[in-house]
Amino acid sequence: MSRTRVHNLNISLDGFAAGEHVTLEEPIGAAGQLFARFDGRVIHGVQHADAPITVDRALTSLWAQGIGAEIMGRRKFGPQSGDWGDDDWRGWWGDEPPFRTPLFVMTHHPRAPIHFDNGTSFHFVDGPAEEVLARAKEAADGQDIRLGGGPSSVRQFLQADLVDFMHLVTVPVVLGQGVSLWDGLEGLQERFDIEQVTSASGQIHHLWNRKRD
Amino acid sequence: MSRTRVHNLNISLDGFAAGEHVTLEEPIGAAGQLFARFDGRVIHGVQHADAPITVDRALTSLWAQGIGAEIMGRRKFGPQSGDWGDDDWRGWWGDEPPFRTPLFVMTHHPRAPIHFDNGTSFHFVDGPAEEVLARAKEAADGQDIRLGGGPSSVRQFLQADLVDFMHLVTVPVVLGQGVSLWDGLEGLQERFDIEQVTSASGQIHHLWNRKRD
Repeated sequence: MSRTRVHNLNISLDGFAAGEHVTLEEPIGAAGQLFARFDGRVIHGVQHADAPITVDRALTSLWAQGIGAEIMGRRKFGPQSGDWGDDDWRGWWGDEPPFRTPLFVMTHHPRAPIHFDNGTSFHFVDGPAEEVLARAKEAADGQDIRLGGGPSSVRQFLQADLVDFMHLVTVPVVLGQGVSLWDGLEGLQERFDIEQVTSASGQIHHLWNRKRD
Repeated sequence: MSRTRVHNLNISLDGFAAGEHVTLEEPIGAAGQLFARFDGRVIHGVQHADAPITVDRALTSLWAQGIGAEIMGRRKFGPQSGDWGDDDWRGWWGDEPPFRTPLFVMTHHPRAPIHFDNGTSFHFVDGPAEEVLARAKEAADGQDIRLGGGPSSVRQFLQADLVDFMHLVTVPVVLGQGVSLWDGLEGLQERFDIEQVTSASGQIHHLWNRKRD
């Protein structure tokens, strides 16, 4: 059974998971502190950093396990808005995006897909969460779907009750402003079984698994 | 830098990690309670069980990440002792052993290697820990080595200071007897940085990373 999963979503104590304004210089807006301790080197496995294997790294490495496609919001893909025009933007990640699967970028502005040699491809799709998820599942060949963020797009899937798993990380910072994950989701905790552990770095990891019927 | 790692080694409150007597009926001796909650389905990734993604499962899934070969004691491979004679024993794991790498079984009784179609092969080697490790590293092609247990063989590598990482799990049972991991290792903790978390199931996970010089 293919699951829809969120990974490594870092959240401030006041509930913000990104800054309001994404620019070329600040890919997650003024919320960079959320990812100050994030070691993305191990997203494909703990062997990808010559560094201790910690609880933080073990949980970060769930990111790629069994994932066949990702869905992301347009603001995760790039800082532009409106029509693409002749923009040749190919994402933040250079010639080797770490995803290595098809990705579905949610946007009202269609555009031709972009393919990379390492198995990564970006497809630009319009429509409600259910439809985008159906397209991603088709591409994932029975594997799980990752919701890659930002928080607005994850919230959209939570509102439609389409999320099976979330790995959230509470980072001990207070941002004061930004994009909240929780807006309009009052009572969300009732739909999930929630486990929490604190790692030696002081981060609190939350594993939310949707309750079974 | 290839590391030598121990994973999913479950230990009783009194320090035992296996029973004294391994038989066909009791592969880890009278210590079966240690593995009562062990969900081996996720050793290759959390997607291999249609079940919640918990801290227990996330840490269990480290087992295969970046591993190119395993070293195991003879008692993990089978209940026999002495010469193999014409024994056609091929291990406990049937036609699809979960390892999918070369394995090096430490024994004073050499025997021809055994190959399986899924990439698993068993090689029977005699000699001190350093030599066996060198052979495993050659086979691992730059990836990490897993010490698969049992506790006697892990202890041998700890005594020779050849272990870079251990994931131990304290299980809240008192066995009273068995094979201790800790015998003769007084002060071992000084050579490691140690992180501990308690998961929702009540198991305590210990991540030991060898201190850097």
